[in-house]
Amino acid sequence: MFTGLSAFPLTPTTDDGIDEAAYERMVGRIAASGADSVGALGSTGGYAYLGRRERARAARLAVRSAGTVPVMVGIGALRTRDVLENAEDAQQAGASAVLLAPMTYQPLTDDEVFGLYEDVAAHLSVPLVVYDNPVTTHVSFSDELHGRIAHLPGVASVKIPPVPADPGEARARVAGLRAAVPADVTIGVSGDGAGADGLLAGCDAWYSAVAGVLPEACLAVARAAAAGEAERARALSAELDPLWELFVRYGSYRVISAIAVELALACEPNLPRPVRPLDAAGRRAVAAALDTIGRTS
Amino acid sequence: MFTGLSAFPLTPTTDDGIDEAAYERMVGRIAASGADSVGALGSTGGYAYLGRRERARAARLAVRSAGTVPVMVGIGALRTRDVLENAEDAQQAGASAVLLAPMTYQPLTDDEVFGLYEDVAAHLSVPLVVYDNPVTTHVSFSDELHGRIAHLPGVASVKIPPVPADPGEARARVAGLRAAVPADVTIGVSGDGAGADGLLAGCDAWYSAVAGVLPEACLAVARAAAAGEAERARALSAELDPLWELFVRYGSYRVISAIAVELALACEPNLPRPVRPLDAAGRRAVAAALDTIGRTS
Repeated sequence: MFTGLSAFPLTPTTDDGIDEAAYERMVGRIAASGADSVGALGSTGGYAYLGRRERARAARLAVRSAGTVPVMVGIGALRTRDVLENAEDAQQAGASAVLLAPMTYQPLTDDEVFGLYEDVAAHLSVPLVVYDNPVTTHVSFSDELHGRIAHLPGVASVKIPPVPADPGEARARVAGLRAAVPADVTIGVSGDGAGADGLLAGCDAWYSAVAGVLPEACLAVARAAAAGEAERARALSAELDPLWELFVRYGSYRVISAIAVELALACEPNLPRPVRPLDAAGRRAVAAALDTIGRTS
Repeated sequence: MFTGLSAFPLTPTTDDGIDEAAYERMVGRIAASGADSVGALGSTGGYAYLGRRERARAARLAVRSAGTVPVMVGIGALRTRDVLENAEDAQQAGASAVLLAPMTYQPLTDDEVFGLYEDVAAHLSVPLVVYDNPVTTHVSFSDELHGRIAHLPGVASVKIPPVPADPGEARARVAGLRAAVPADVTIGVSGDGAGADGLLAGCDAWYSAVAGVLPEACLAVARAAAAGEAERARALSAELDPLWELFVRYGSYRVISAIAVELALACEPNLPRPVRPLDAAGRRAVAAALDTIGRTS
């Protein structure tokens, strides 16, 4: 489950809680698409905003709706104690793996980040995916830190931020990390616009948020890359350029939220305040982009 | 309560919860020192790491232990719904004001930050202090954004990060913000090494974490600055230089935690994991600095 395409769905959320029916439909749609795994409660799944009970409930719903497709569940929290509780809940819910980003309020030292993973790895009975997302955590992982963490028992994969656009630089980035982690630890790229580039640069997986709403389009990219069809993979990703441009402009979280509304997968609002839906101009831009790429349902 | 010295105590915390006896002693000691207010559950008070019940309990303990000294209580959380719950709890606990930083996971737009304060201001019955702390929230407040927020009903003060060390630049910084906010909104400086500089540059208050463990030393600085004795205020602050240097090296949170241990105000560990206490060398450096500045009890 740590190779190929992993789709990370939105968790449609209002002040009243999670829209469970919409969430189950979205996860079921991903599973039916043929994605290799589901990533519940990733950043786009809003894990950082949800309470313990909401997260445990979402994990159960995701596992149930995914059927035979394995589900990894995000367990991150600011406090180690809460991470351990989330890990316990995720395992009870039937998660096949857990995903952990080092959330921060006070900036953490490398030893503190390592200590977090060490504490959590000691308590897990399912594999752990290390989630490196500097935009949200403000933690900067060196390859040396990745290497220390990836050697902990149970670490199965590392989810990294976008690789450089230049193919040579992208290959060097992945090769550098590959040299630092054990051979059986896979590397997955995130940052959706970099999916094709990451896979072609040697990543084993694409951990994709846009695949939560457009799984078929992403699967086409991932399958072409896996078959070594570099030009085709890049061309299929380039078809989605209108979306990547909106991601840069508005943030992928808000754009994916708007795509879910356009595709009638979720109602609006579906993001936890203080995050707000796109304004009318943004919504129109999303609708136009979906029209351009021919993904209006 | 939005002028003079506001002392922000540590909330001694382990995986098992808050050391309530130590916390009450620390707040009582601040109140006895003559500080103008207590800031419970600030960044050094670990608000971001504590659960709702722990925060409500700490607010009650702080109000009780502070006696007649007014207490402001930090209510920040990643989700607006949780901020509103914390606000309700703080008010029920007897807080005289609340303090709100815009915590982030997904980066927020200025409109989302404003919307958070707007939502919260609409539900408050006590004054609100706006807490601008880019190191922990990664939100960059422009003076324009400060101005929009400070005009909301109930906003009483703005807690800003350290002012520039150059006196002219510091005065310009404070004057720029002053021009953007209503005349009855006070400006308080934080970042302890900048306390004297901030007050001398025109700030009305010093929102100080080190005053949580060394209130008398900070009061001396604040009173000298309030009396217009610039040289004396700077000299008194300079006496604490060995501490400010350690703050830069280790982070004020860990250093204040170690000072609390050295002064027998709290046991070790007293920080919520994943944050770790200073190592042995750091602890020795803190002990030596306290010895140098003559504050060993």
